[in-house]
Amino acid sequence: MAAYSRLIEELGELGSLSQIGSILSWDQETLMPPRGIGDRAKQLSLLSTLIHRRATSDTLKGLIEEAEKEELDEYQRSIVRETKRDYEKAVTLPESLVKEIAETRPKAIEAWSKAKQDDDFPLFAPLLEKVLDQQISVAECYGYEDTPYDAALDQYEPHLLTRDVKVVFAELRERYVPLVKRILDGVEEDYDAPFAGMQFPSSKQMDLSRTLIKGIGYDLEGGRLDLSRHPFTTGSNGDVRVTTWVDETCLKPSIFASVHEAGHGMYVQGHLEKYWNTPLGEVASLSLHESQSRLWENIIGRSRGFWHHYWPEVVSTFPAMEEKGMEAWYRHVNSVKRSYIRVEADEVTYNLHILLRFEIEQRMIGGNIDISEIPHVWNDLMEKYVGIRPQNDTQGCLQDIHWSMSSMGYFPTYALGNLLTAQIFDSARKAMPDLETDISTGQFSPLLDWLRSEIHQYGRMYTFPEMTQRVTGQPLKVDFFINYIKEKYGELYGLSL
Amino acid sequence: MAAYSRLIEELGELGSLSQIGSILSWDQETLMPPRGIGDRAKQLSLLSTLIHRRATSDTLKGLIEEAEKEELDEYQRSIVRETKRDYEKAVTLPESLVKEIAETRPKAIEAWSKAKQDDDFPLFAPLLEKVLDQQISVAECYGYEDTPYDAALDQYEPHLLTRDVKVVFAELRERYVPLVKRILDGVEEDYDAPFAGMQFPSSKQMDLSRTLIKGIGYDLEGGRLDLSRHPFTTGSNGDVRVTTWVDETCLKPSIFASVHEAGHGMYVQGHLEKYWNTPLGEVASLSLHESQSRLWENIIGRSRGFWHHYWPEVVSTFPAMEEKGMEAWYRHVNSVKRSYIRVEADEVTYNLHILLRFEIEQRMIGGNIDISEIPHVWNDLMEKYVGIRPQNDTQGCLQDIHWSMSSMGYFPTYALGNLLTAQIFDSARKAMPDLETDISTGQFSPLLDWLRSEIHQYGRMYTFPEMTQRVTGQPLKVDFFINYIKEKYGELYGLSL
Repeated sequence: MAAYSRLIEELGELGSLSQIGSILSWDQETLMPPRGIGDRAKQLSLLSTLIHRRATSDTLKGLIEEAEKEELDEYQRSIVRETKRDYEKAVTLPESLVKEIAETRPKAIEAWSKAKQDDDFPLFAPLLEKVLDQQISVAECYGYEDTPYDAALDQYEPHLLTRDVKVVFAELRERYVPLVKRILDGVEEDYDAPFAGMQFPSSKQMDLSRTLIKGIGYDLEGGRLDLSRHPFTTGSNGDVRVTTWVDETCLKPSIFASVHEAGHGMYVQGHLEKYWNTPLGEVASLSLHESQSRLWENIIGRSRGFWHHYWPEVVSTFPAMEEKGMEAWYRHVNSVKRSYIRVEADEVTYNLHILLRFEIEQRMIGGNIDISEIPHVWNDLMEKYVGIRPQNDTQGCLQDIHWSMSSMGYFPTYALGNLLTAQIFDSARKAMPDLETDISTGQFSPLLDWLRSEIHQYGRMYTFPEMTQRVTGQPLKVDFFINYIKEKYGELYGLSL
Repeated sequence: MAAYSRLIEELGELGSLSQIGSILSWDQETLMPPRGIGDRAKQLSLLSTLIHRRATSDTLKGLIEEAEKEELDEYQRSIVRETKRDYEKAVTLPESLVKEIAETRPKAIEAWSKAKQDDDFPLFAPLLEKVLDQQISVAECYGYEDTPYDAALDQYEPHLLTRDVKVVFAELRERYVPLVKRILDGVEEDYDAPFAGMQFPSSKQMDLSRTLIKGIGYDLEGGRLDLSRHPFTTGSNGDVRVTTWVDETCLKPSIFASVHEAGHGMYVQGHLEKYWNTPLGEVASLSLHESQSRLWENIIGRSRGFWHHYWPEVVSTFPAMEEKGMEAWYRHVNSVKRSYIRVEADEVTYNLHILLRFEIEQRMIGGNIDISEIPHVWNDLMEKYVGIRPQNDTQGCLQDIHWSMSSMGYFPTYALGNLLTAQIFDSARKAMPDLETDISTGQFSPLLDWLRSEIHQYGRMYTFPEMTQRVTGQPLKVDFFINYIKEKYGELYGLSL
C-alpha cells in the first residue's frame, strides 16, 4: 500500500489547499473589509492555479496508477476510483480554458450584479454569452453521452444523465404542476398576515438560529453560524461553517436559511474522520447535499412536531409572539404563495422554479436559444408553471447568481434533492417508528444518527441513484414528495387534494 | 526593467501567500471553531513550505541579480536591496532547520501554555532548551558581528547591533530606573480606586473602541476590530486587521489595546499602494512599529487633550461614568503601579520589564545561563528593577508567549519603540505648532498625515536608526522619553522629579 499511502498524503495537501480556499471565500462573504477585495481576488486566483497544478500533476497520476494495482479494501478502492475521476476531469480541461473561465468569472458576476440592480439584461447578455460559450467548450472537453447538458449536469450530479432527469421532471410537470395550481387556487387565507408589522432584532434572531441548529445536531464546536448576503455552507472536516441572512421584519428567512445550511453542514460533519481529505470525506452529489438541507429545513423544520418543541423558545426570545399562538406560527411558516423569486419560494412552489430553469438551461447549452430570448422565455414559463408573469428581469431571469458564476447544470439538483427528502423520510419513519414523537420532543439524534449511518459516512462511495436505491430500496420517485405535499397542505388549507 | 517587473510580479505572488497566512492565523485567533485546529496547523505548515520554497528559489535569485543591473530609481533600488536581504537570509537556513523549528513551535507553545497555567516551569524547560538551541543555530547560520544576540536582534530590528542597544539600555538603567522608583515611591493615591466595582458590557466596549480608532484615523474600510485572547495586528495592503481584548470590570484593557493595535494598523495602512507587496509596503522594523502603536496608545491616547475630546463619548456609552468626572478618568488611565505582568504594565514601568528580558536573553543566546536558573534570575531582576518579587513563575518568567514561539531578540524593540515615541512627538510638535489644540479638538489627521509622510510611506526604505535620524534630526536618545515622563507624572502625582 505504499502508493496508496502516498496518494492519501498528496490528497491531504490538496485538501489543505482547498480548505484554505474555503476560508478565504467565507471570510470574503462575511467579514472582509471592502478594501481587501483586490488582494482577495489575487489570493484566490493564485490558490486555484496551485490547486489545478497539483490536481493535474504527473505525480498524482502516477500514484493513482500504482495504487490501482495494490491490494485495497472496498473503501480504499472507491477513494482511488473517485480520485481518478477527479484527475481525469481536471486534465481534460486545457489550462488556457481554466484560466479564461477564472478571469471571466468576476467580470460576469459584477455585470450580473449591476444588471440585476438596474433591471438591465442587455448589460449582462454579452458576459452570459461568453460564460455559455465557455461552458459549451467545457462540455465538449468532458464529453457526454447524449447531449452537452449531460456534461454540465455531471459537474454537480456525477453519472446522472439528462434523459433520466427529464423523465422525473416530465412526471413533475404532469402531476405536480396541476396539484400546485389546485393548492394555490384554494388558498383563501394569508397565513403571513397575523405577523405583519412585527420587529425582530437581528442579534436575537441569530441567537434563536444558533439554538435551533445546535438542537438538531449541527456541531458548533466544529463550525460557526454567521451572517452573509446569501446563506451558504463551506469547509470540511472539523471546520464546517454555515451562514444565514436576517430580515428584521420576519423570522422566517433567518430561521429556515440557518436550518437549511445546518442540514448541509451536518452532512459534511457526518463524514468519517478517517476519510477526511479523501473523496469519502466529500459529499456525493449536490442532489444528495440538497436532500439533507431540505429534509431538515422543510420536512423537519416546517413540521408541527418541530414547533411543538421549539415554540417556547420562539416565545422566550420574542415575548410578543406569545399571543399569536403556536398554530398560527405553524401556518405562517408554511404559507403558500405565487412568487417570483426562487430563494423566497415556499416548499410547495419551489420545484416549479426549477422546472423552468432546467428547460432554459438545456436550450442554452444545446445552442437552441438566443441569449436575447431568455427574458421572454423565462417569463412565459413562469406564467405557465407558477401562474404569474415577472414585471421585470430583476424578478425574472436576472434573479440568480448561478449563471454568472458559470454554474450551469446546477439547478436541477435542487428539485432532485427536494423530491428525495420525502422518499428518505418515508424510509426513516419505517426504520424508526417513534420518529415523529422524537421530533416533537426535541430528540433529533436518532434521525441524525440514521442519516449518518445511511448516507453521511459514505462520502462519495455511492452515486446519487445508488444511494437512493440503498437507503430507500427503490429509485427516485416523485410519488413520495407529491403525497407529502398533498397530505400536509390538504390539512393546512382544508383542501381535498 | 524587464527583470525588475518580473521581480515585482514574483513578489506579488509571495505577498498573496503571506496574506493568506495572515488571514488563516487571524481566523484561528478570533473565530475558528475549536475542532478546526488540526487542519489549520496543516494548512499553515503547507503554506510556510510553499512560501519558503519560493522565497529561496533560483528564479527569485536570478531576478534579483538581473534587476540589480537595470536602471532603477531610488525606491526601486531599495526594493531590490531589501528583497535581496530577505532572500539571503532565507537561503542561509537549511530546510531541515526551518522544518525542525516549525515542528517544535506548536509543541513548545502547548508546553508553555500548560506550564504557565500550572506554574510548572520544569514542564516548559526542555522545550525552551530546544527552542534556544535552534535559535543559536539560526544565529550561527545568519552570522553576526560581535555576539550571536546580534543575529537574534537582527530578525526584528535589521542592522541594529546589540552593542548599540546596550548603550541605550545602560543609560535607561542608570537614569530611568531611579526615576521610576521616585515616582512609584511618591504615589500616595490609587487612581484606579474610584472605578472599582463598575461593569462595562463587552459589546459596548467594542463600540467605544471602534469609535476611538476610527476617530484617530484607522481605516475600518480597510480593516476590522475583533476580539482575541491577545491583541494583535495582522495583514497588509487593503486588509489590515486589529484585535483587542475586554475586561468587563475595567475599560482600560480594551481601549488601550485597541488604540495600540490601531497605531500598528495605521502604520501598515500608510504604506503607498504602488509599493504594496514589496519591501516598501512593509514596516521597517519592530521598534518603528512599536513607536507608532505606543505613540497613539500613550502619548496621544493617555493625554489630557485626547480625553478632553473623547470623555463625552465615554459618558454617552457608559452613563454611570458621568459622575466620576473627566479628571478622575485621566488619572485612572495614567495610574502607576508596581506590577508583575508586562502586558498590564503602565507607561512608566513598562520599560523596566524589557530591561530584565534583554539581560536574560543575551545570557541565553550567549550560552551564559542554565535554563533552570531563569526563574531565579528573572525574579532577582524584577526585584532589582521593579521592586517586587514574583510569587510564582506564572507571574514571572512564564508570563510571555514569545520564547515558546522562537521569538528571541524581539523584546528590546518594545522599549526602543517606547523611547522613540517621545522623540518623534517632540519633532511633530515642532512641525505642527497647533498639534496639542488639534488633539484636544479631535483633529488627528494632521498628526497622522505627518507620520505618513515622514515614516509610513517609506516602508523598509530606511532602517530604524536612519529613520530616527531623518525624522528627528538626531539618533535615538533617552532624554525625550525621560523628560516626557517627568513632566507628565510630576504633574499627575504632584511630585517634583
